[in-house]
Amino acid sequence: MDGHSDRRTFVNDYTPRPEHKFSFGLWTVGWPGVDPFGVATREPLDPAYTVERLAELGAYGVTFHDDDLIPFGAGDSDRSARIASFRKALDSTGLVVPMATTNLFTHPVFKDGALTSNDRDIRRFALRKVLRNIDLAAELGAKTYVLWGGREGAESGVAKDVRAALDRYREALNILCGYVREQGYDIRFALEPKPNEPRGDIFLPTIGHAIAFIGELDEPDRVGLNPEVGHEQMAGMSVVHGYAQALWHGKLFHIDLNGQNGPRYDQDLRFGNGDVKSAFLLVDLLEHGGYDGPRHFDFKPARTEDESGVWSSAKSCMRNYLILAEKARAFRADPEVAEALRAARVDQMSLPTLADGESLADLRAEELDLAEAAVRGAKVEQLDQLFLEHLYGTR
Amino acid sequence: MDGHSDRRTFVNDYTPRPEHKFSFGLWTVGWPGVDPFGVATREPLDPAYTVERLAELGAYGVTFHDDDLIPFGAGDSDRSARIASFRKALDSTGLVVPMATTNLFTHPVFKDGALTSNDRDIRRFALRKVLRNIDLAAELGAKTYVLWGGREGAESGVAKDVRAALDRYREALNILCGYVREQGYDIRFALEPKPNEPRGDIFLPTIGHAIAFIGELDEPDRVGLNPEVGHEQMAGMSVVHGYAQALWHGKLFHIDLNGQNGPRYDQDLRFGNGDVKSAFLLVDLLEHGGYDGPRHFDFKPARTEDESGVWSSAKSCMRNYLILAEKARAFRADPEVAEALRAARVDQMSLPTLADGESLADLRAEELDLAEAAVRGAKVEQLDQLFLEHLYGTR
Amino acid sequence: MDGHSDRRTFVNDYTPRPEHKFSFGLWTVGWPGVDPFGVATREPLDPAYTVERLAELGAYGVTFHDDDLIPFGAGDSDRSARIASFRKALDSTGLVVPMATTNLFTHPVFKDGALTSNDRDIRRFALRKVLRNIDLAAELGAKTYVLWGGREGAESGVAKDVRAALDRYREALNILCGYVREQGYDIRFALEPKPNEPRGDIFLPTIGHAIAFIGELDEPDRVGLNPEVGHEQMAGMSVVHGYAQALWHGKLFHIDLNGQNGPRYDQDLRFGNGDVKSAFLLVDLLEHGGYDGPRHFDFKPARTEDESGVWSSAKSCMRNYLILAEKARAFRADPEVAEALRAARVDQMSLPTLADGESLADLRAEELDLAEAAVRGAKVEQLDQLFLEHLYGTR
Amino acid sequence: MDGHSDRRTFVNDYTPRPEHKFSFGLWTVGWPGVDPFGVATREPLDPAYTVERLAELGAYGVTFHDDDLIPFGAGDSDRSARIASFRKALDSTGLVVPMATTNLFTHPVFKDGALTSNDRDIRRFALRKVLRNIDLAAELGAKTYVLWGGREGAESGVAKDVRAALDRYREALNILCGYVREQGYDIRFALEPKPNEPRGDIFLPTIGHAIAFIGELDEPDRVGLNPEVGHEQMAGMSVVHGYAQALWHGKLFHIDLNGQNGPRYDQDLRFGNGDVKSAFLLVDLLEHGGYDGPRHFDFKPARTEDESGVWSSAKSCMRNYLILAEKARAFRADPEVAEALRAARVDQMSLPTLADGESLADLRAEELDLAEAAVRGAKVEQLDQLFLEHLYGTR
Repeated sequence: MDGHSDRRTFVNDYTPRPEHKFSFGLWTVGWPGVDPFGVATREPLDPAYTVERLAELGAYGVTFHDDDLIPFGAGDSDRSARIASFRKALDSTGLVVPMATTNLFTHPVFKDGALTSNDRDIRRFALRKVLRNIDLAAELGAKTYVLWGGREGAESGVAKDVRAALDRYREALNILCGYVREQGYDIRFALEPKPNEPRGDIFLPTIGHAIAFIGELDEPDRVGLNPEVGHEQMAGMSVVHGYAQALWHGKLFHIDLNGQNGPRYDQDLRFGNGDVKSAFLLVDLLEHGGYDGPRHFDFKPARTEDESGVWSSAKSCMRNYLILAEKARAFRADPEVAEALRAARVDQMSLPTLADGESLADLRAEELDLAEAAVRGAKVEQLDQLFLEHLYGTR
Repeated sequence: MDGHSDRRTFVNDYTPRPEHKFSFGLWTVGWPGVDPFGVATREPLDPAYTVERLAELGAYGVTFHDDDLIPFGAGDSDRSARIASFRKALDSTGLVVPMATTNLFTHPVFKDGALTSNDRDIRRFALRKVLRNIDLAAELGAKTYVLWGGREGAESGVAKDVRAALDRYREALNILCGYVREQGYDIRFALEPKPNEPRGDIFLPTIGHAIAFIGELDEPDRVGLNPEVGHEQMAGMSVVHGYAQALWHGKLFHIDLNGQNGPRYDQDLRFGNGDVKSAFLLVDLLEHGGYDGPRHFDFKPARTEDESGVWSSAKSCMRNYLILAEKARAFRADPEVAEALRAARVDQMSLPTLADGESLADLRAEELDLAEAAVRGAKVEQLDQLFLEHLYGTR
Repeated sequence: MDGHSDRRTFVNDYTPRPEHKFSFGLWTVGWPGVDPFGVATREPLDPAYTVERLAELGAYGVTFHDDDLIPFGAGDSDRSARIASFRKALDSTGLVVPMATTNLFTHPVFKDGALTSNDRDIRRFALRKVLRNIDLAAELGAKTYVLWGGREGAESGVAKDVRAALDRYREALNILCGYVREQGYDIRFALEPKPNEPRGDIFLPTIGHAIAFIGELDEPDRVGLNPEVGHEQMAGMSVVHGYAQALWHGKLFHIDLNGQNGPRYDQDLRFGNGDVKSAFLLVDLLEHGGYDGPRHFDFKPARTEDESGVWSSAKSCMRNYLILAEKARAFRADPEVAEALRAARVDQMSLPTLADGESLADLRAEELDLAEAAVRGAKVEQLDQLFLEHLYGTR
Repeated sequence: MDGHSDRRTFVNDYTPRPEHKFSFGLWTVGWPGVDPFGVATREPLDPAYTVERLAELGAYGVTFHDDDLIPFGAGDSDRSARIASFRKALDSTGLVVPMATTNLFTHPVFKDGALTSNDRDIRRFALRKVLRNIDLAAELGAKTYVLWGGREGAESGVAKDVRAALDRYREALNILCGYVREQGYDIRFALEPKPNEPRGDIFLPTIGHAIAFIGELDEPDRVGLNPEVGHEQMAGMSVVHGYAQALWHGKLFHIDLNGQNGPRYDQDLRFGNGDVKSAFLLVDLLEHGGYDGPRHFDFKPARTEDESGVWSSAKSCMRNYLILAEKARAFRADPEVAEALRAARVDQMSLPTLADGESLADLRAEELDLAEAAVRGAKVEQLDQLFLEHLYGTR
């Protein structure tokens, strides 16, 4: 039995269950609502409490930045107590920690970069911070370690030597891969691209740039991606094309699901909101494209909400995923859709352009009836409308 | 003597000369002005005439799509006559053909893609069209063969199997690389990314996606990039970060220079216009970053202009490049800039984060004076202002 | 019986009927598919044939640019014959002409503007072209005359005196209003804003700029707006906020419905596609916000399609509108929605902030329990999720 | 002697002096660097100290939000002491307060709006907060009172009744205008548009929307605009077209100068940075277009900087303005430019399209030589290049 048929059990139900592999970052539901123009509107949430609430809602996992769990600069006994409390909540609820990551962006020391700060002392400090939290991640059973380089970038094009910065980024990744290998940790790294905010321009701005970068590492197999829906959409990119290319490269290690309304500030809307059609396309890709990792939500409950809005929006993230997954299943099972896919020749894309054993001379000798080929309709509008009607629920 | 010192001869002169390696596509100055809402405003230009005019202006090279030189569907004798006329102009002016490319977008047959059309017959036709023009490119001495997949994409997310499309794209590139190897042509391929227009979403939308893709080819060394300034800016990307990353990967094979005002339709403004600061940063990178290929302009003289505006704008492209190159030289030679670069620790980025022979244990034993490090200013505003004043010409 | 209750008859049916007031431009279904990188992929459609097909599909109206009906420069007898043929089709089908407009953008003479060309001769020619077609519009019974100033703008910020251009735009509108008044035509003008494309920057780029401009006219009541969904979205604007503000000013005279994916080239997708959530919000506004004009589609069937795709996409535009209208009705009738709207205090916005007769002194004497007010949740996430589920069809 | 000739005295000097009317908000240089992903990197600045430093740099004015000067919730004696300290600094330096404004966005109570909160209690509180600070503004001699409605908007399209919100916005403005009139304050209001951030969509998103809105007020003459460069550019708008339209309406009451790189988060770069060509065009408009108010900078010194970077960037804002003003003067004085403007017929835009006394019948009887008019070049590329070279300093 494959993971696929497992997932089908949710049909027509929309109740999240652990087998759906939904996970949330502590920093998502725990976001207190500070934005560039306003102070917090909500109290911080205790991590153990968060674990309990997420478990009640049907999540299977929780993820964290080091500083979400243990305040920056906490002493050793405070640290131990906080980890123990978190662990206890995990044990009692059965929630797992599929992923962890490092906060390399909040503290002023990272204001001009962490792993690619111009300041070598700070690069070294950043590396130590990552190493320490990898140990904790391994201890808590995380299989994926995410690196979002939110401060790795610049506002000024002359204040960073971009190629030297990529050298340092590579150096850091090589060091981290070596460390994980030496420790025997069962952990893979996942880079999270973002085009801008909080920096004017961030290095490795899209899925493509990050995969290209990985190709230059010493141990490229240890590193993949954690793309975020909204980050690609901030660059006006098709999130579905991007995730599909990541899958094609075998690099879709982990995902961040949320919503965004095109190029503007990072909105982190609940999943299913924002560009609804892309959300549907993406769930279709994830469910039928071979992705088997966590469905991780990296969203921010609107700053306007009190705690009830927090849990309501977290629940909606999962529910929307399940609604769209059921729609995707129905879409793929619809005979009229199958016919429309054939009419649009979508299946022909899987046929090699050159037949087995065919030579270029054979190909070049062939002639196309251009006049006829030019007027063939691609039959896309009909197919796309069927998709839309599955989204609308009118089929 | 390196290419670098050669280039310095233009100082304070701004007169384009062949050693500056400026080149133009036939389709740039030859653009008749058809846009989505209007018909042509200018007559087509004869290729030989174009060659002569470009030579007069100081260009060293001219580039072409097959259909720019030989109308689609032209008979063999017409074809020969047109090639002969073009060759004659090249010979008499000394202009070279550093690059050629295929038009896989104008004819209706390509309306839903060429090398990644769902329609296998069309993929095969597209491949034949490329192969035929590679022979001509080789004959005319082109060293770079560009592939811009303007129609390789989709408006509908369900009408293309993206991963199968990338398989076909790879297959096509593998076939083309094999052909060039077998023929012994001294030609490298350069992919030209673009996020959208004329398709809703184009495959390989940015520099990053294209470099990542190349990593999956059979002969990756034969394939690099031809990034276009405006294409990256249509996705809100930093063109300088993008070109720098391409250089870092050793993939900056060829370039398309022009201007654009951010996310909107593809403007193809003359080089130096649009985002002026980025243009300056880019010339600084190209002049001091090791790029030694043609400075190729892929712009469109505004549709409002008559032929005098065409040549005037072509001249301005080169002149603006030379002005910015001189500014870049002066910026790098300015002692106050050197001091500001040091103050901003830009040089420290070249120092490995881990010293030679240093262990992670050593690194982890070190402690940072956080309070002190947190308040260190990055000294970026001063440095960036110096750059701006070089742009303004007030230094 | 109001227009409203009429419209309710479509519930659960989705079959377009004349009472739904759907209309299409001749140039929409008739778009042959020329784009900046490709030639036509479809044959032009005869206007009379178009009228017949639209009538079969359930439309009630058809609209036109002068040049859609009568090729630019046609002689008088040709013109008469074409008008007669069109009229005959209208008579036999019962289709009406609710709106007409002028093509001031295709011919080269308009390359740098029409009513705001720097060239006074061209401004005069443009005015004549509008006047002539207003006569025809009146003759054919159009009640709205649209002005889309697609060429009124600039690529260069120094080549147009913007304030003088606005003077000329105002002069033109004043002349046209005077003409319509003198002729006794029952026609109102509707300006159609667009931020860019085909010009780098177009004058009156958004709904806001156009309404502001109207305030400076001699007869502002004769002039309103014809906003287009995609045009506002090209500027990253909320189309619903924009249309709502136009309604608030009493200026929503006519509408152009289509789809778009954020800031990029003008996509003119079929209505219901693109930003699906905005489409739903917009239909909710139109159906429940007092707009009673035509539901006019200004879309382009994808260039990939043959004629069957053209009619299929036209049909989908209307069907999607009806689906969304039914959803909007259900949303507004859902008791849980009513409760959520109250919880979010949406109704309180209609209460004046200052009570009748209350003085500022009274207001200033009042005190707010800040601590309590600061933690009140706005209850938006729950409400928004209900909306989304109506869109998904899961309620 | 007009303000204009005064301003010319800065030629070739670039040293800011009070007659240049440069002003800064307390919140600009005082920004401590909190962003959505990071805490403060700098200490808060004392207002009196800020006044002294700005005076030293050559500014003439300082502006403030109530909470910049007096912390939210401060008691009466604290308030008085702070105002006295500020006043003393003003008196000793001679700096004026040309503008003041209200912070209606930081406190949690405003999380879902202030003057257009769904919550009537909060609207009333917001009104009281504005009224109180208007009294202080008048006392300190401010002539302009700015209203930036940063929280007036929504993330969800169903959670706000947009038209009711505009009713409340209008009610608030009418109340404020009435108050100022009754008090006899010499104060005009200036609305500051912004498309989004911190809200998903903000009401009155552009210059156009705000001017349109003003037309519906009881006392429209009391209200104008305070447009911000970056806010218009976040919507991909031409800031020059926008400011020019505001001038055309007589509504450019005050300005916020800064820099931005197109649609993305609000960058608030120092003036002169970002889109450099637009900055030059804008200074040309302000210097030669009749704007005589303060040149007010609303920027944020990069978060990477220490205090020296703060003052350095503030100084650069003024210096860049002066550099561009001198360039604008030189551009307008350049005889070749005058010739190019004539060649591009820029002057013809000032000629009425219809001559005095000319009838429409006269106009309609005229005929244009279309063939000749169609091929006339608009001569824009040459003119625009001259502008660019003045920017580059190569003329």
